[in-house]
Amino acid sequence: MTIKRIQTQTRMSQAVVHGNTVYTAGQVAQSAGGESVANQTANILEQIDQLLAEAGTDKAKLISATIWLSDITTFGEMNEVWDAWVPEGQAPCRACVESKLALPKFTVEIMVIAALD
Amino acid sequence: MTIKRIQTQTRMSQAVVHGNTVYTAGQVAQSAGGESVANQTANILEQIDQLLAEAGTDKAKLISATIWLSDITTFGEMNEVWDAWVPEGQAPCRACVESKLALPKFTVEIMVIAALD
Amino acid sequence: MTIKRIQTQTRMSQAVVHGNTVYTAGQVAQSAGGESVANQTANILEQIDQLLAEAGTDKAKLISATIWLSDITTFGEMNEVWDAWVPEGQAPCRACVESKLALPKFTVEIMVIAALD
Repeated sequence: MTIKRIQTQTRMSQAVVHGNTVYTAGQVAQSAGGESVANQTANILEQIDQLLAEAGTDKAKLISATIWLSDITTFGEMNEVWDAWVPEGQAPCRACVESKLALPKFTVEIMVIAALD
Repeated sequence: MTIKRIQTQTRMSQAVVHGNTVYTAGQVAQSAGGESVANQTANILEQIDQLLAEAGTDKAKLISATIWLSDITTFGEMNEVWDAWVPEGQAPCRACVESKLALPKFTVEIMVIAALD
Repeated sequence: MTIKRIQTQTRMSQAVVHGNTVYTAGQVAQSAGGESVANQTANILEQIDQLLAEAGTDKAKLISATIWLSDITTFGEMNEVWDAWVPEGQAPCRACVESKLALPKFTVEIMVIAALD
């Protein structure tokens, strides 16, 4: 099985493809830091779409997602954006819990695992 | 490799099978919300048994578990139930940390990865 | 696909190999509890090196890492040790969030997934 790394820097790769499975790094909103949870979620999901595309797959093949919110009371606001993004009938499994994130301006972080085929 | 989704709704699937690997959603105690950590853990582990059965495997093939407790001082209470449930000689790897969960009535959440064969 | 468990006790295995993928348990600093975040991180990364060796692989084949810090303001201190340890051009994807850990003396926990080949 091959390992293909995507957007690799010193600290981390943004995604790693191992065989038929794609793993992403925890994504924070690179263009929407400090904005609303809804805006950060939308920005993160765009980044995930781009990473999956770069890996050769898309959101219809999501397997699993882990979501961290710095304030769990924003669960509903995040879910509105999430629910609209997930392809009907193809939702991944998911966990969503509260944790502070690396920088206070980031209030949402999402990490996914997807299938290549 | 095939993707098989189990109990799929808009927001998430409760489990996804990809090739020989089964991923579950983070399970909270559907029948024991608001009850003791021990009761919630027992309820969650029953749900995991059912999901693994639906996927075609069982707890003897667990690979990895992530456990979130809303209060880490309940670590011992959760572990008593967990330790009794894990098949001897076949324990998965595991991480257990503190995070608040989606609803205050839920104080334990467990997500697992298992092998199909 | 085979399942090989490493350092299995009642509660958990320290690593599980499933096919070509190795999963570790969340590692805390067994020899450096109560010490600085830098010391704990270094100790944990040694433990991960040993587990990967026992599984038949090494840090050049890391796929993904999840890092929990009990105090996210120690992010920089942990990263200094992490960045020096990661092989150039082969960084895994990664998420790092704040969560309290099982015992107060542990302030860093790291769980990884790696490729066997």
